[in-house]
Amino acid sequence: MNHSHVRALAFDVFGTVVDWRGSLIRELTALNLDLDPAGFADAWRGGYGPAMRRVASGDLPWTNIDTLHRLILDELLQRFAVTGLSEPAIDNLNRAWHRLTPWPDAVPGLTRLREHNVLATLSNGNVALLTNMAINAGLPWDCILSAELVQRYKPDPAVYLMAAGYLGFTPAQVMMVAAHPADLRTAAAAGLATAFVGRPEEHGPGGPVESGEEFDLHATDFNDLAEQLAPPDPE
Amino acid sequence: MNHSHVRALAFDVFGTVVDWRGSLIRELTALNLDLDPAGFADAWRGGYGPAMRRVASGDLPWTNIDTLHRLILDELLQRFAVTGLSEPAIDNLNRAWHRLTPWPDAVPGLTRLREHNVLATLSNGNVALLTNMAINAGLPWDCILSAELVQRYKPDPAVYLMAAGYLGFTPAQVMMVAAHPADLRTAAAAGLATAFVGRPEEHGPGGPVESGEEFDLHATDFNDLAEQLAPPDPE
Repeated sequence: MNHSHVRALAFDVFGTVVDWRGSLIRELTALNLDLDPAGFADAWRGGYGPAMRRVASGDLPWTNIDTLHRLILDELLQRFAVTGLSEPAIDNLNRAWHRLTPWPDAVPGLTRLREHNVLATLSNGNVALLTNMAINAGLPWDCILSAELVQRYKPDPAVYLMAAGYLGFTPAQVMMVAAHPADLRTAAAAGLATAFVGRPEEHGPGGPVESGEEFDLHATDFNDLAEQLAPPDPE
Repeated sequence: MNHSHVRALAFDVFGTVVDWRGSLIRELTALNLDLDPAGFADAWRGGYGPAMRRVASGDLPWTNIDTLHRLILDELLQRFAVTGLSEPAIDNLNRAWHRLTPWPDAVPGLTRLREHNVLATLSNGNVALLTNMAINAGLPWDCILSAELVQRYKPDPAVYLMAAGYLGFTPAQVMMVAAHPADLRTAAAAGLATAFVGRPEEHGPGGPVESGEEFDLHATDFNDLAEQLAPPDPE
């Protein structure tokens, strides 16, 4: 399949670009709290889908991810019976999501992909979170695009169409890159090209592993994706 | 005056970061058309304020700058009696605004400023224009912010407040950087800090030169601004 019409790549971020689980476990472990860091990290991430669905259903007004993360965190601190954290310490823990570390191939792979494509985030994370993460991790985005810009969360088609519109391309000229088939299926339904990148360690040892053979491309990591999207040699 | 509360810099782009006039004159000259390139460039830019005011007044629905530039260009090609340009050639000329070249101090100055501050555009230019310009010119933005995101043009206060909101800062933590006092005055009224950077060559030899002593900072170029905003030595 020829992908020469693709001009921009739009990246899912949590799990696809950064290892949210490993990063949160490291931050939680460093705090020396009396809890299971992996269990807490999984519960925090697990609260994210339901919280976004409360916004999508109208049960909550538009609320960005920093605020949703904090709502979930406040509940979890109660549930895990964590006491003694000051307000600045809780706020700083909530901003662990601004400091998530990339998978080892992410920065080199993005750097190669950027030679021939416009690179944008396309995440449910809010603009400040994505901007601070990029600064912290050295992620070479050309443009930060977020569900926050349309006040709708993926999988709302408005999010995918917004990315193409702001970048000045047709949906087919934009390739969504994600480790999550559900995200890619809704991107494809909105007319975007799709690339699946496997992140078998996203959910830790023994966690669910996704497969992506149904999409336009499937790659083992961002370096593999860069190989597959490299323009043919000119000779 | 202490500026240690400033966390992000939001930049006006046309005239402040890039030399629109010199860039357009170069592109127009290379096309070898029977016209005065400087006069055409000035007329093109001159149509920009009135076109934005038509949007602000409701005479036009929301229309981004690429489209406004094209409306003005089509009028000017008639007025200057330019014939024989194909539609792709006209479209390519309109995209000269995506290829504007930075002032010589812009990239090194931004690179220094980025060591201690989040750097964003805050321009009436649309997202695609600003993104393509950054790629073409190597401008090291952390985030592309544009009037297009709120469908209002500067000097509407919503544009300035949007920047602070998306970056996750208070207006006072964001410093607007511009070569244009009118832009800085409305930024200040919205609560932003302000830095004037002189660009005496913006309008060419003998053109109007602005001065900016009324603002929080005034600098001769981005390197000077980086000196003034550098944190004090730790000792």
